[in-house]
Amino acid sequence: MGIRDLREQSVIRRGQDLVDFLRSRPLEPRYSVGVWYFSPAASRFHDRYQPASSIEERLERIARLAPLGVVGVEAHYPNEINEDNLETWQRFSRESGIRIVTVVPLLFWDADFEFGSLSSPIAQRRKKAVERTIKTLELNRELGTDFAVVWPGIDGFEQPFGANLADARRRFVDGLVEAMETVPGVRIAFEPKPYEPRGRILFGTTAEGLWLSHLVESKLHHPENRRLLEQGHALVCLNPEVGHMMMAYEDLAYSFSLAMEAGRLAHTHWNGQPLGGYDLDLPVGTVSPEQLESALYALKMHGYRELFGLDLNPERMPPEEAVRISIEAINAAADRINELDHEAIVWAAEHPDRARGWIERYLVRVRAPHPERLEPLPRPPIS
Amino acid sequence: MGIRDLREQSVIRRGQDLVDFLRSRPLEPRYSVGVWYFSPAASRFHDRYQPASSIEERLERIARLAPLGVVGVEAHYPNEINEDNLETWQRFSRESGIRIVTVVPLLFWDADFEFGSLSSPIAQRRKKAVERTIKTLELNRELGTDFAVVWPGIDGFEQPFGANLADARRRFVDGLVEAMETVPGVRIAFEPKPYEPRGRILFGTTAEGLWLSHLVESKLHHPENRRLLEQGHALVCLNPEVGHMMMAYEDLAYSFSLAMEAGRLAHTHWNGQPLGGYDLDLPVGTVSPEQLESALYALKMHGYRELFGLDLNPERMPPEEAVRISIEAINAAADRINELDHEAIVWAAEHPDRARGWIERYLVRVRAPHPERLEPLPRPPIS
Amino acid sequence: MGIRDLREQSVIRRGQDLVDFLRSRPLEPRYSVGVWYFSPAASRFHDRYQPASSIEERLERIARLAPLGVVGVEAHYPNEINEDNLETWQRFSRESGIRIVTVVPLLFWDADFEFGSLSSPIAQRRKKAVERTIKTLELNRELGTDFAVVWPGIDGFEQPFGANLADARRRFVDGLVEAMETVPGVRIAFEPKPYEPRGRILFGTTAEGLWLSHLVESKLHHPENRRLLEQGHALVCLNPEVGHMMMAYEDLAYSFSLAMEAGRLAHTHWNGQPLGGYDLDLPVGTVSPEQLESALYALKMHGYRELFGLDLNPERMPPEEAVRISIEAINAAADRINELDHEAIVWAAEHPDRARGWIERYLVRVRAPHPERLEPLPRPPIS
Amino acid sequence: MGIRDLREQSVIRRGQDLVDFLRSRPLEPRYSVGVWYFSPAASRFHDRYQPASSIEERLERIARLAPLGVVGVEAHYPNEINEDNLETWQRFSRESGIRIVTVVPLLFWDADFEFGSLSSPIAQRRKKAVERTIKTLELNRELGTDFAVVWPGIDGFEQPFGANLADARRRFVDGLVEAMETVPGVRIAFEPKPYEPRGRILFGTTAEGLWLSHLVESKLHHPENRRLLEQGHALVCLNPEVGHMMMAYEDLAYSFSLAMEAGRLAHTHWNGQPLGGYDLDLPVGTVSPEQLESALYALKMHGYRELFGLDLNPERMPPEEAVRISIEAINAAADRINELDHEAIVWAAEHPDRARGWIERYLVRVRAPHPERLEPLPRPPIS
Repeated sequence: MGIRDLREQSVIRRGQDLVDFLRSRPLEPRYSVGVWYFSPAASRFHDRYQPASSIEERLERIARLAPLGVVGVEAHYPNEINEDNLETWQRFSRESGIRIVTVVPLLFWDADFEFGSLSSPIAQRRKKAVERTIKTLELNRELGTDFAVVWPGIDGFEQPFGANLADARRRFVDGLVEAMETVPGVRIAFEPKPYEPRGRILFGTTAEGLWLSHLVESKLHHPENRRLLEQGHALVCLNPEVGHMMMAYEDLAYSFSLAMEAGRLAHTHWNGQPLGGYDLDLPVGTVSPEQLESALYALKMHGYRELFGLDLNPERMPPEEAVRISIEAINAAADRINELDHEAIVWAAEHPDRARGWIERYLVRVRAPHPERLEPLPRPPIS
Repeated sequence: MGIRDLREQSVIRRGQDLVDFLRSRPLEPRYSVGVWYFSPAASRFHDRYQPASSIEERLERIARLAPLGVVGVEAHYPNEINEDNLETWQRFSRESGIRIVTVVPLLFWDADFEFGSLSSPIAQRRKKAVERTIKTLELNRELGTDFAVVWPGIDGFEQPFGANLADARRRFVDGLVEAMETVPGVRIAFEPKPYEPRGRILFGTTAEGLWLSHLVESKLHHPENRRLLEQGHALVCLNPEVGHMMMAYEDLAYSFSLAMEAGRLAHTHWNGQPLGGYDLDLPVGTVSPEQLESALYALKMHGYRELFGLDLNPERMPPEEAVRISIEAINAAADRINELDHEAIVWAAEHPDRARGWIERYLVRVRAPHPERLEPLPRPPIS
Repeated sequence: MGIRDLREQSVIRRGQDLVDFLRSRPLEPRYSVGVWYFSPAASRFHDRYQPASSIEERLERIARLAPLGVVGVEAHYPNEINEDNLETWQRFSRESGIRIVTVVPLLFWDADFEFGSLSSPIAQRRKKAVERTIKTLELNRELGTDFAVVWPGIDGFEQPFGANLADARRRFVDGLVEAMETVPGVRIAFEPKPYEPRGRILFGTTAEGLWLSHLVESKLHHPENRRLLEQGHALVCLNPEVGHMMMAYEDLAYSFSLAMEAGRLAHTHWNGQPLGGYDLDLPVGTVSPEQLESALYALKMHGYRELFGLDLNPERMPPEEAVRISIEAINAAADRINELDHEAIVWAAEHPDRARGWIERYLVRVRAPHPERLEPLPRPPIS
Repeated sequence: MGIRDLREQSVIRRGQDLVDFLRSRPLEPRYSVGVWYFSPAASRFHDRYQPASSIEERLERIARLAPLGVVGVEAHYPNEINEDNLETWQRFSRESGIRIVTVVPLLFWDADFEFGSLSSPIAQRRKKAVERTIKTLELNRELGTDFAVVWPGIDGFEQPFGANLADARRRFVDGLVEAMETVPGVRIAFEPKPYEPRGRILFGTTAEGLWLSHLVESKLHHPENRRLLEQGHALVCLNPEVGHMMMAYEDLAYSFSLAMEAGRLAHTHWNGQPLGGYDLDLPVGTVSPEQLESALYALKMHGYRELFGLDLNPERMPPEEAVRISIEAINAAADRINELDHEAIVWAAEHPDRARGWIERYLVRVRAPHPERLEPLPRPPIS
């Protein structure tokens, strides 16, 4: 298996180059789903609205989503995928055509990780986290996944006074390094989240995830890892999760392009979320659809070819329904942006003093149910 | 001139009644603009990007917007409209057909209002604020406007320790009462804002504005005011400003319906703004267009017939362009919601357990550029 | 049993009256705790860090907190207190001296309340909520508690489009009215929360809670309820929860004083929380202690005599420890504010133009470990 | 002149080493002020409350602040310091003993920078920004300042659709590189801000500022720059501004330690600000003093020796008063943290499972006016 090539993402195009690129490369999203939300999550505040269901039941339901464009599935080790049920997963994959795109180390659930996983100051517990990460990377390698998502949900703090935060981050970095050196050649897709279930989570924004990538990669020495790095492949990449980005008040297009500019956007997790608040994981498109569209356009500008992972928490509807809404919303947004007048947009963006308000008026038209009722909008004076 | 009748807003319909009402009452927005943003505002951080312009110049530009559906204009007393230039305004109005819908007392700009206007603890300065409010109400009466917007931008605090906030609110309430009793029969459209230019502003949310309406009206005794109140007309109404609501993390449909349920939505101010942050006054539709659509639908459910005031701060485009974008965005959103399958939406909303995800999927379709590419969505099982 | 008299809260003092009042009325907090957090809550993201414990075990632990100043306990019906274990509770109360100050209807946990409790559009489920509220009010009456806290955590929405929010609020109001008319004379202490576990919760801020109080009280007709209202007693009061207020970006002193000015601050719930974010329920004083102090000073200005309820979620420490921190933090803050130079503070607050920065510098000194190292600060020129 | 040595900041200590370090290195803040706020800023919403004053007048006022611990002053080129008034500044410096610690290129004010300064897509205007930056770096070199603060306030966007954000960042990076290669050996102290006066500002958080440092430094080739980099000196450092960090929902201790761990904390700007909102620049200590204390402790853990710059906007008090409050608040906080039981704190932080709640209870005591009224708190079981 080779590592997926993300290096082309880092090309920054402008002018006619960019127009040609936008015209030649339609965004054609393919999807992955997470096995976890096919059984309802616990809540601090209310009972489950649906019965829990087994991995087998969930995979059966997921298999039926393939016609929608679902080509991948994601799972945590060891609670969802593990040595004992591997065959179930592999059979599912063969029969449905849906690949396991990532196995995620479960670094947040266990009571042992009360004070952190890879960053825990308690040696015994940190060791458990490192070992779990190693086993997960091995499983990723064995299954030929694209990367291992790492979400450090429980590595953080509520009370910063006296906390030795640099030391905690060092433990986290070194734990990740240890795992990656033990199982070289497996890419990480780091998923930042600013808070919840900790008051603050380490490396909680896209930019902090990028910073982490430097810290970790500078400590990798295994020949296989070095070889990949020297070829320009990033080994610590990102899996920005839209809801987490919105909780952190990020702009999607800005942050996605920051990661792509670095050739590090290995995956994306999508859902709906207002700025701030608690982690809702609503269906895509229900909140700030303009952020979805501008994000997709940024992805298109950098030639993003990776998957669109759906990370949902469908509390009051069947997971299939949340998946459907999300795929339909992304497909419809991709339809819209693929058809735009790229030349005019690029020109307007590059000549803001000569096209004041043009993009805004153009967007109103392409979103309007009856654009013909609005006065005609001349193209900008492209020269 | 009579006071506009908002009482019908408070009717709460459901089921078939609501469907019939939605079908029979298309939302047909008419607009007003503010004279202040036809000359650029000062900024703490950057120079003006356009030269300042006179009232006459501004009115000329505004007159040319009538064909877009602009029927009203708003201005502050005394810096924009006053005893000396009244004729200019009246001629403008006659010639353009654009009415003066409100004169707003300038209660925030003067250095005298450093520590508040109607709530100032400094008697002399508070007196000035009361007098300015009185003169403004008189001008509203004289001009036959619809209401006097009151925005208490400078009435607030940064440092709450020791602040006698109940006393400050009492001064504010009593100042408003004094003005309203001196010039009875003039409706107030109170505009809340949570912060900026004060760390906190008094009565800063829609609900606090509603609470204020009770505090003030319970103190009105002038026979003309009593008569109107007894007829069920509200005298302290609201002019919620969308950007301010978003800064306060309000949901538009929720807050607008709260005001309409009380028969108090005299006016609305529109623009674009993310949740929180500083006051951007972007063109409508550029941020969270889904909030615009759900807000319009809430207005339609309560039969809102009042104006859509545009309150913009077009820093990098001509004001005309910002007005155009905003009107086009609202018109397009109104077009969309007027054409919806109201029966299905009402049924789905009233039967959430039997239409899980239906509204979301339906909305994806009505917003999609190629709904035909999505699988057909059956109507909910209306019974 | 009589209803507690909150009417005096609404007096607004100023000048020498206020100084005298502040001097004569030290704030002497007494505390209540919630039985719920003596057993760990479920979490969406991690396992429990402590074993669940029975009501009996919890009450034993609570009894031992009496020496700290804990005089009350709060519980939900029917999961924590109910017909079957009433004797356990009453014995606990007799033996520990700790009163049951409120029984709270469990209106959020059940799967039946998936789409709301009192506001549910599903008649059968709403009926269950009303009945549970009635039984809870009866239990409050039987036990002679001070009030019934009502927290509408599950009454809200994520997707506002098409939601008939006025109708949902009407159902909520009418459900509360029905319960209060069935069991007259029992005061409600309504606890707003802006979001979580719903994207938006009805009546989510202090001001919306106050608005609710008007909506409900205007529909009460039972003679016992009318009698109390006519005597000036509020029947729908508030139990603002500090963490919820911070999530809603409220200023504590501002909101508490708004409720007291209306004679409606029946109770207060305390903890630590940054602005926005998810509901942390940290120990009091760990975040924004300046808000705690300004809030206590506001309470003191209005002569608040009610309890300080501690509403915590001690995930990584024993509940006793979280209670200790919180009580110590409030006691220390009360110590500080009781000893202040009230005359100087009141004068400075009432003469902001003649005491610029004085309160800030004074507060630095009273909080400093070595005020003697700072240059002497003259009192303001009180005249 | 040599560059200040920040390399030691990056040492991460723990256990007894950390205790010894904390004991041996008291935090002794020294201050700088900005010349800009000794004359009132413009505001969009209100008139100036004080008359504008000349540079000479401002310097006279600043000179009188030396006894408070003010050792430095900061100014923008060319509006505040420039070729024509250099002598005035140098005389001020000689006579007052207050050094010019930084000259900041004015990259945000001019109308020419409407669409950005170093990132502007308009070649002519970007050239002006690069030239101004070069001149400013030259002035810094000539004056022997510590660094040049760069604040890219006007480099950003409101509407992300179609914006080529990677290209804008590249222009910004290349502009900074060009200036730094033209005037080698001058350190940059980059000051991030998430928004205001743009909806979004490029490199808006501490982590993005760090990311920028890598982007820029990897493009520096001048021998003098290479020599410094190879000696381990950072050339693109940070000047985190506390208010901006709070607007971006950062935790101070977390972000400061992130910058110090990288040896890049060249300067710090202090004031008071709630999370989110608009840029208030209140006096230090008025909001979230617990963040101030935990930040100072983090600085102490990394041996921070740089200045504490005060960046205020004293709208309703003389600037001297705002400076006094801020210095007093920082000094008092430093007094508190210098005297703590470092051994117990370090042990508790490193053994969270054996000291649950200890730090919180300890902090209550050291902040309490009467700790003796609280029950004695045993030290944790240090082993």
